[in-house]
Amino acid sequence: MIKIMALDVDGTITDQNRIICPEAITSIKKGIESGLQISLISGNVIPVMYGLKTFLGINAPVFGENGGIMYYNGSIEKFFDKTKPLEFLEYISSRSLATPYFTNQWRETSAAFSMDPGNEAIVSKEAEKWNLEIVNSKFTWHIMNPGQNKGYAVEILKKMFNANWDEILVVGDSDNDNAMFTLPVKKACPDNATDSLKSISDYVSPESYGYEIGDVMAKFNII
Amino acid sequence: MIKIMALDVDGTITDQNRIICPEAITSIKKGIESGLQISLISGNVIPVMYGLKTFLGINAPVFGENGGIMYYNGSIEKFFDKTKPLEFLEYISSRSLATPYFTNQWRETSAAFSMDPGNEAIVSKEAEKWNLEIVNSKFTWHIMNPGQNKGYAVEILKKMFNANWDEILVVGDSDNDNAMFTLPVKKACPDNATDSLKSISDYVSPESYGYEIGDVMAKFNII
Ligand SMILES: [Ca+2]
Ligand SMILES: [Ca+2]
Ligand SMILES: [Ca+2]
Ligand SMILES: [Ca+2]
Ligand SMILES: [Ca+2]
Repeated sequence: MIKIMALDVDGTITDQNRIICPEAITSIKKGIESGLQISLISGNVIPVMYGLKTFLGINAPVFGENGGIMYYNGSIEKFFDKTKPLEFLEYISSRSLATPYFTNQWRETSAAFSMDPGNEAIVSKEAEKWNLEIVNSKFTWHIMNPGQNKGYAVEILKKMFNANWDEILVVGDSDNDNAMFTLPVKKACPDNATDSLKSISDYVSPESYGYEIGDVMAKFNII
Repeated sequence: MIKIMALDVDGTITDQNRIICPEAITSIKKGIESGLQISLISGNVIPVMYGLKTFLGINAPVFGENGGIMYYNGSIEKFFDKTKPLEFLEYISSRSLATPYFTNQWRETSAAFSMDPGNEAIVSKEAEKWNLEIVNSKFTWHIMNPGQNKGYAVEILKKMFNANWDEILVVGDSDNDNAMFTLPVKKACPDNATDSLKSISDYVSPESYGYEIGDVMAKFNII
């Protein structure tokens, strides 16, 4: 029986233009009314996650910066630090390899940037030397600390709600969701997910871009 | 012909639990597809407004802190300053009359707090002495600079899009929308609006909590 449903945001409850799927709002409400704890785990910044929690009626903690930071009940908890990511960003920016992203003013545990695709190899190599990871969210690149990923957030939810692995269902669409999908949890994805994520999912919904939330809930006997 | 539609958020596109009305998302999309510029003007903080702009597909600038700050095209513009509001907040907090609100970490032009209703009279009087205004958004109290209100934001939109007053339609539900509703613009409200706002509206929709957006658009020949 599923106790916790952890959802990626972009491409999982939003469409290809990043607009929230209206039916996902309805499904989330039904899932919560049936007793489910629903969380959101995204690469986005924590004030945006606080807004989404409020406006989608999310009941569990929400996580930003790919699991680096959590908002719950009026409190923010940071699990990682942005000092080294910012130093690295300064380094690659000063060499004209990257441009800082404006949401960095609201980032607390990571740094975001854009770069020309031609610089990807050299920046990846430098990140490795610094023992940092760079992750592409499709909208920006993110500089993450080692161990900072969505799987870390799922483990926090597991402890917080005293759940077993098989009582947790994760839903995502792209490769930055791998860290959740490699845990021994139930895994589902929309039809718009990457082939690699589909290949490790317990269930691939025929629906896409948020329409699959209700379908997945039905599949796992939540609603 | 309506060129610009400026929407309040809470109680206007959300329900009594602050959840986004799914049908409002659909109506906003239709309005924009028909050529409308849609803005959001709220007391909320600018990163939340940035998130709402993204996830609702809003095309015009969005305003936070009751018109004190704007986000558009990756840039933030502040029209007011938080120095004096924060000094006042420190003053009333040190006298145990108020408690700062956690979203202040993301406020740039105002300060938010909660207080016991019994302290309202004394805090209002002190604010007047400081030449500041306190506004109740239903969720928190806000300390605003003189002239900082939603009407200020509407005037910015008017200049930005080179619109006439009668090409602007504002929609809100409560008394912090008065500053928009006292401008010579078209005014509409949901059925859940306050009686005082209804009394100065051009159109009171029979629908509530976001369901009225499509109805209002039809009424003003937008869709
Ligand atoms: Ca995603
Ligand atoms: Ca994401
Ligand atoms: Ca397919
Ligand atoms: Ca309102
Ligand atoms: Ca009524």
